[in-house]
Amino acid sequence: MPAQTPDPRPGPVPAGFDHLMGTEIVEVGPRRVHLRLALSPIHHQPMGIVHGGVHAALAETAASIAASVNVGRMAVGIDNHTSFLRAVRDGTLDAVATPVHTGRSVQLWEVAIRRGDELVASSRVRMFVLETRRTSPGE
Amino acid sequence: MPAQTPDPRPGPVPAGFDHLMGTEIVEVGPRRVHLRLALSPIHHQPMGIVHGGVHAALAETAASIAASVNVGRMAVGIDNHTSFLRAVRDGTLDAVATPVHTGRSVQLWEVAIRRGDELVASSRVRMFVLETRRTSPGE
Amino acid sequence: MPAQTPDPRPGPVPAGFDHLMGTEIVEVGPRRVHLRLALSPIHHQPMGIVHGGVHAALAETAASIAASVNVGRMAVGIDNHTSFLRAVRDGTLDAVATPVHTGRSVQLWEVAIRRGDELVASSRVRMFVLETRRTSPGE
Amino acid sequence: MPAQTPDPRPGPVPAGFDHLMGTEIVEVGPRRVHLRLALSPIHHQPMGIVHGGVHAALAETAASIAASVNVGRMAVGIDNHTSFLRAVRDGTLDAVATPVHTGRSVQLWEVAIRRGDELVASSRVRMFVLETRRTSPGE
Repeated sequence: MPAQTPDPRPGPVPAGFDHLMGTEIVEVGPRRVHLRLALSPIHHQPMGIVHGGVHAALAETAASIAASVNVGRMAVGIDNHTSFLRAVRDGTLDAVATPVHTGRSVQLWEVAIRRGDELVASSRVRMFVLETRRTSPGE
Repeated sequence: MPAQTPDPRPGPVPAGFDHLMGTEIVEVGPRRVHLRLALSPIHHQPMGIVHGGVHAALAETAASIAASVNVGRMAVGIDNHTSFLRAVRDGTLDAVATPVHTGRSVQLWEVAIRRGDELVASSRVRMFVLETRRTSPGE
Repeated sequence: MPAQTPDPRPGPVPAGFDHLMGTEIVEVGPRRVHLRLALSPIHHQPMGIVHGGVHAALAETAASIAASVNVGRMAVGIDNHTSFLRAVRDGTLDAVATPVHTGRSVQLWEVAIRRGDELVASSRVRMFVLETRRTSPGE
Repeated sequence: MPAQTPDPRPGPVPAGFDHLMGTEIVEVGPRRVHLRLALSPIHHQPMGIVHGGVHAALAETAASIAASVNVGRMAVGIDNHTSFLRAVRDGTLDAVATPVHTGRSVQLWEVAIRRGDELVASSRVRMFVLETRRTSPGE
């Protein structure tokens, strides 16, 4: 997932904070991005439940990829508002981003984080779309 | 920082997600908590800037410690709203939590994240204070 | 819509801030509340577009009714996060609240505010459910 | 407070939603805006306490004026996140906006709403600064 392209491929993110967390890309499309995270004690806060920052980071990544792919340019976060609905310790998290509003310069994405059928966190992430067109080899 | 006490000591957090990130506790008090993070590429998103989840996680940890110490019981996050104000790549982040409202069951904390004099992120974290009194050895 | 019951009836709200605004209740159920507002210059800010507080107030009312009816007790707002997506001047707003999470003490509702097919504002309202059971004449 | 100028004068707002509510401008400056509202039953929700939309609207107005004056151009709200800290029924509210971040295109303002010494609501309002320079007669 090099910085110069907003079209990541399925699989584990190969570097950076997403790699550190263990975030895996399941599916990417212009109106839906699906990430997955296998939980382990590295994701815990001191009480042994998943750290709120893990949910916020998953949501941020999902919305960032989603906005970039939706508009074909890189996007950066303006704000991330994540609500923690149920404490979880283990298992697998599925984070799915869907659009609330896809403006040309500002986009608002909703990210639902579930463990199985249970909604455990819900996030709104606002993205600012950068003006520079992506450059790929050959363009 | 064992789970059963809300009074963490200065120094690197020894386990869990805070340890994974490299979060260090600088100072803890009932109305001010100060954390520090030395940035490196493990904190980056694909564009090479600090991942929004890093800011959100720092804020979450600072507010969680602050609420727990303020009220003398464990607290869990209700929501975390983090605004990203300036992109940074390297250096050291200082996150300082101060209270907006310290109710007995719900508390609202503000967390300012600075690099040097620059405010780079600003967060509001709402905490729910658990009813169980902390238990320490001997109680 | 007397204070002692959380089961409001369709029609204009007869008193208070909702009455001042002109808010009308269209439909009330435990998982969906629909309000309507006919816009006029009383709802404008100085640039002649609908004031952000109008959207926030509509969302607050919708979520308050929804949470109260959902759980059968009165509920008060914890926080209201409203995003303004499109500026509007006139016409009719439809605000529909649907649940994100319906816990026993804390509930999170999403409120979509549309003019016709257009989403013009989107809100998340968190409600705290009061413990006192409602009392109605005869109970 | 005509639409074409972002420099409002102290006194009651003469038209629109702020006028409907009874909002009064106490003091305006580039880094601090102070509004006042004398509470009455027109501001209540059905339980007889001040409607959350009143707090959100006060914050929105304060931040809108503040951002416009700060940058010398009109600004519109992106989002408004208001936390309700204490229920009030009567008295006078003072809303004071101070800057969190004053970027050229996006600004984040904090608005504290107090009754006397008590903080009753706390809001974060993000503003988008419009590119068109204000036009005044003679320019």
